[in-house]
Parts: sequence; C-alpha cells; structure tokens
Amino acid sequence: MTTTAAPRPLRIVIAPDSLKGSLPAAEAALAMAAGVTGAAARLGHPAPHVVLAPLADGGEGTLDALLAAWSAEPRTTRCHDAAGRARTARYGISARQDGAGSPVRGVLEAAEANGLPLVADLPLDALTATSYGVGEIAAQLLDDGAEEILLCIGGSATTDGGTGLLSALGARFLDADGDPLPPGGGGLAALRTIDTANLHPRAREVRWRIAVDVDNPLCGPRGAAAVFGPQKGATPDDVAVLDAGLAHLARVVSAQTGVDVLEVPGTGAAGGLPAVLVPFLGAEVVPGSALVADAVGLAGALADADLVLTGEGSFDSQSLGGKVVQAVVENAPATCAVVAIAGRVQLTAAQVQDAGLAAAFSIATGPMALEELIGGAAALMEDAAAQVYGVFGGRRGQGDGQEDGRLDGQPDG
Amino acid sequence: MTTTAAPRPLRIVIAPDSLKGSLPAAEAALAMAAGVTGAAARLGHPAPHVVLAPLADGGEGTLDALLAAWSAEPRTTRCHDAAGRARTARYGISARQDGAGSPVRGVLEAAEANGLPLVADLPLDALTATSYGVGEIAAQLLDDGAEEILLCIGGSATTDGGTGLLSALGARFLDADGDPLPPGGGGLAALRTIDTANLHPRAREVRWRIAVDVDNPLCGPRGAAAVFGPQKGATPDDVAVLDAGLAHLARVVSAQTGVDVLEVPGTGAAGGLPAVLVPFLGAEVVPGSALVADAVGLAGALADADLVLTGEGSFDSQSLGGKVVQAVVENAPATCAVVAIAGRVQLTAAQVQDAGLAAAFSIATGPMALEELIGGAAALMEDAAAQVYGVFGGRRGQGDGQEDGRLDGQPDG
Repeated sequence: MTTTAAPRPLRIVIAPDSLKGSLPAAEAALAMAAGVTGAAARLGHPAPHVVLAPLADGGEGTLDALLAAWSAEPRTTRCHDAAGRARTARYGISARQDGAGSPVRGVLEAAEANGLPLVADLPLDALTATSYGVGEIAAQLLDDGAEEILLCIGGSATTDGGTGLLSALGARFLDADGDPLPPGGGGLAALRTIDTANLHPRAREVRWRIAVDVDNPLCGPRGAAAVFGPQKGATPDDVAVLDAGLAHLARVVSAQTGVDVLEVPGTGAAGGLPAVLVPFLGAEVVPGSALVADAVGLAGALADADLVLTGEGSFDSQSLGGKVVQAVVENAPATCAVVAIAGRVQLTAAQVQDAGLAAAFSIATGPMALEELIGGAAALMEDAAAQVYGVFGGRRGQGDGQEDGRLDGQPDG
Repeated sequence: MTTTAAPRPLRIVIAPDSLKGSLPAAEAALAMAAGVTGAAARLGHPAPHVVLAPLADGGEGTLDALLAAWSAEPRTTRCHDAAGRARTARYGISARQDGAGSPVRGVLEAAEANGLPLVADLPLDALTATSYGVGEIAAQLLDDGAEEILLCIGGSATTDGGTGLLSALGARFLDADGDPLPPGGGGLAALRTIDTANLHPRAREVRWRIAVDVDNPLCGPRGAAAVFGPQKGATPDDVAVLDAGLAHLARVVSAQTGVDVLEVPGTGAAGGLPAVLVPFLGAEVVPGSALVADAVGLAGALADADLVLTGEGSFDSQSLGGKVVQAVVENAPATCAVVAIAGRVQLTAAQVQDAGLAAAFSIATGPMALEELIGGAAALMEDAAAQVYGVFGGRRGQGDGQEDGRLDGQPDG
C-alpha cells in the first residue's frame, strides 16, 4: 500500500536527573512527557515519539532509575548495617536476555547496608563501622547470576577501605598472628596479609564498576578519612588512625597485587571502598552519571533524537562536571538539541550554550519562594516542558497532522 | 557573480511592551536583541536578521515607543495642566515621507497635560479639572502638519467629556445666555449649544484615533464619573453632578450631530474625553495596543518573520484582551512563532498555546524575590531571549555560517 509521505514525528528523549528534595527522576520524566505531548496535541502537531530515560548520578535514586530502565522489580536481601545490625536491603538485577548481547546487570546502593542514615540512632563510631553488609548484597547478586555489578557507594558511614565488603565475599584480612582483624578501619594498622583463597567463586568472573561522584584519593589531606571521616563521627585522632590504616592497607595491597591504589582517583570515595575492589576484583571506578547513562542505553536512545530534555534541581557549574546533564550532552549527537529544565539555573545562557546545550530554563514562572517551586515542581515542570516544545516544535512543518506518537520506556541498555 | 545558495538567516522581530516598573520597552527590546544575536554567534549560526519594534498599549511609554518607531525626536509645546497652570508637554510627529503612502502621524499623551500626577500637589477638584491643555497639544500637532493624530489618554485628572480639549481647538460650549461654560465637567448641566464654527481649520481634515484600554461607557454605574471619578477627587455628590453633566452633554451632542455617544464603548475613558471628539471630529476609539502596532508597522515587520519575541511585566489573562501580546499574536502570520518573555507568567502552557503563542517564559531563573527580578531585569531578559533562541535556532540547519545579519530599526509604519 502506498501512502503519501508524512513528516517524521519529532523524536524526543526525556532524560532528567531527580530534582533533589522535590521530584524523583521518574516523576520529572513523566511531567516532561506530559508537557511535550500535551503541547503537540494543542498545536496540532503529529504526536512526538517520546522515550523516557530518567537518569541518576550514582547517588540517591540510581537504583530506581536502573530498575525503571530495566523494567525490573526491586529485590531484597538480608544484610547488616555499618554497626552490624541485621536489616533488609533493596537491590536490582536486569532480566536475562537469551541470545542478546547485554550482560545480566546487577545494581546495589551501598547505602542500603552501610548508609549513614541507617546508624543515625547510634553514637557514631568511625573506627568500627563496616562495609560488610555491602558485600552481603554483592554476594546475593553473584548468587543471582549477575554478570556485571554496578556499585553505587555514596552516603556511607564507613572508612574501612572496603575490607568489610571483601570479607563478606570470602576474603580474610589477617594480622601477624593469622587472626582476622576486627571490623572497621580502626584496626587496619595490624594488617599483615589478605587471604583471597576463599573468595566467592564468581567474584572474579563478573565485571565490577563503582560509581563515584568525587575524585578524592584514598589517603592524605584530600583522602577518605580527612575529608569524609568527620561527618562519620571521626575525631581528629580517629582521622589520623584511619588515614594511617588506609595507607597501610594500600601498601599491603600493593605488595600482594602490584596495584598502587593510592594513585587511582576516586578511591577515597565511601571510606575507601574501592581500595580492595580495584586490585582484587578488577573493579573500575567511573563517574556515576556516565555509568547510569551507559546502563540505560542513553547513547542508543539519543542516536536519532531531535531533542533531549534533561534537568535537575540546581543547574550550575557542577552540572557540567560529571553530573547527569554532562552525560546527556556527551551522549547527544550534534543533530540533537539538548535543553535542560531545572529548579534553579545558575549559569548564563553563554555558559549553557558554550557547554553544548541549546538552552536551560528554570521551572519558575515569576518571583517565587523556594517552597513554592518545590511544592509545585511537577506541574511547573510539565508546563516548562510544554513551553520548550512550543518553541522547538513551532519551527517544524506542521505536516498532515498524522498521529504516530508512542510513549515508550527506554530501550534496555 | 554566482554564489553558493546559503540558508536564509532567521528573521526575528523583537516586539515587547515595557516591563512596568523595571524595563522600558525599548530597553527590553535591546536586551532581547542582545540575547538572540549573542546566542546565534555562540552556536555558530548565521547572524539573524533582527527588527526592533518595541510596543506599548496606549498608556505609559506609548509616546516613546512611537518616537522610536519613527526615529523621531520628541517635540515640546506649551500648554496647561488640569488645574490651568502653564507647563511644557512632550509630543511626537513622524517625518514627512515625500511620495510615500504613509501619512504624517502625530502622537500625544494626554497625561502630559491633564495627567493626575501633574496636579498631585493641589487639592483635587474633579468638577473644574479641564482637558484644555490636551487640546493645546493637539492644536500644535495640527499646526505642525500632522495628517493623523493618535491620542493616548490614560491617567487623566479630568471628567469634562473632552469639552476642554475641543475648546482649545476653537469650539465654544455655551449656556442658555450664550455665555461660555466655566472649565470642567461640573458646569455641563448648563450646556445649551456647542458652537464649532471657529474650530481649527485642520481639525476636521485629519484622522483622529483615540487609544483606550478600557471599554467603559460614558455614563451610568460603569461610566466615567462613577468608576474613575473618585480617584480624581470626586465626592459621591460630585459623581452625581458629573454623571448627570456627561449625560446632558451626550443629549446636546446627539441633538446637534445625530451621534449617540452613550452607545460607543470606551467613551468613558479619561473622563469621557472621546465624547465630543467622536461626533465632531470623527475620531475612532481603538484599543491602544492595536493602534500602536499599526503605527509602528508591526504587521509588515512580521510578514516574513520566523520568530517574534514579545513580553511584558506580568503575562496574564489581561494580556490576551487588548494588550500588546494580543496585538502581536493578531499581527503574526501562521508561519511566525510567537514567544513571550515576562517577569511573571500567570498562564499555563495550555492557556498560552491555546491563545496562539508558541510559549511564554518568565525571566526568573529559580526561586527569586520580586526585587531581584526587577533589579536584574535587563540581564535576565537578555539571558531568557538567548535561551529561547537556543531552542528555536537549534532546529535549523547550521548552513555555512554566513554572516548576513543586520540590526535594524523597525520600518516606518
């Protein structure tokens, strides 16, 4: 059957971060989608082809973003918090795709086990807090058949160099007498050897990637203990003990594996959690936003897009350094316009456009208090997206008004 | 010489109202122009062809908007204020264009003579306040050779039915004894006859148009005395006297001319100033924004435009009822996208787009106090225009980057 050539519907990818404190990424994406589809209908345009790809930066919301991307339900497993108390943690795993090229991917948020808020009811003890529970979730992912594990590690209560995590996977951190060290970073000075003979059988088979949003080194004045220790309850004396312990850990690791983790940027994240995962499991330390963008298949979704809407709570200079917006810009081809919509835009149009975006708008519609913006965020976001569509879609030929739009989930990455 | 075909530069018309209290229309237009041209340069686009057409709604700023449109310097003339004190008033007149079709146009703001602020230092006397000075400016325009006169009449202190104005042009308002009435609306009950034998010789040759932004009738509960009298100092008794006087004036006018001005909407504006101009001089009562749009040649400027940026202080439901934004929408062809940028946007995207605009954005970039918006209005406006350009221009082929842009004044209407 022959039909008259019709204009291709606009292809719009919706890829926001969360607006922290007001709108999770998935809700921001839905509001944006409602805005652009509503505007297209009002303006008599062909319904745009909309792909929802809510993102995250490796911190809060990352698990949910990946679960949405994978169309997966969250799973739960038993583990222990940083103080050693049993709890239930959420994690995620993608479906096995027989014959497809994608690996089975698992994702865990370390804070589901070693998170600082989970031990807020106790006196903070930076010396004994352990990441053992994170390893318990990881072990469950190995048992579940994950072929790739994404570790999101922000917000931790621990400074143990990841020794707890690796212990839960079967490693043993032994002193000169061959006895296991006590939990936490406070006892690392006594470390003599690391026994990995009994590591989980699949631990070295899978690809580990650690999402970080800082580039701090393991030790020294910008290290895990000095910078993040105090917020975890470390006194100045504790910081000195922890920093020395981590440095000693690095020496032992280097002697056994030849890998000098002191030189790996980002190893200071989450109490040095990458310090043993990198050398013993071959883990990669990557910017969280890039990791999430990759995991949700952002580049593929953007390949033939005309417009991508991204956004976050506050769009500022940090947004262009490893955050979600930067990941969107990097994955967008030159033919795809990138527009950010944020609660607050703290960059000039010149800064925005020099960074590769077409524009950045606030959801504010006039003089408003922060509480008004937060309270009305979803409706304001929908409206702002509709306005952006009005400008962007206003330039296209109106065609014959064919209705070919779909509202898709984003492709599995 | 043969050249390679290059993409036509974007044609952008910049046609804002003033942002009352913060940014005159001409400054708003310059900020918008700086935004779009800066964005185009940053994005490597051909420089857009920009036409500046700052607008006004017939009220404050109209004289300046027309002077800018006509590339004319303001003129001044001696006249009298509503209390009869001599003063100097500004007015404008367009250049004579030999052989061209446009008439010589004059514009006056009545408030330069009978404005309420000019008599703020006196006890208000609604019964005697006179529009005589407005007629003095008009007479000067006739002497200057104006072929069309635009009367902007907001903000008056008078309720004399325009009798003062017409007196200054040579008419005589006589009582039963053939004596002239005293100045002001308070004595209109004694009117017997209107003698126009000695009207200025050019008064009936020119085209008079009166810009109004209200549709109040001359008399009754929505009339000039009842609605606007109190703010001019009229007591309830004064209101009754003035309303009866205007009604009597209308009867005398009707008897002499056959024109029933009680039926003409808008005749209640500015103390009934149109009540004698309509019947005796054939004046038309028109919405101010439409009048200004016509006077600056907006329709011609928009004929081949791709995008028009308009805006005002607060974009709300009133904006779509006879204000500048509405005039822009009405003059824009279907191929031209209309985008408003305002201090505050009080309409939803649905309302904006149903009204024929592509979009409306606030200059706010996040939670901000009113004072921040007002203080930063020019820079915020420039930035917002640059963002809009980024979205709108982002869809066009980038072409070969030819630099063919110009920054024009708007055409003489």
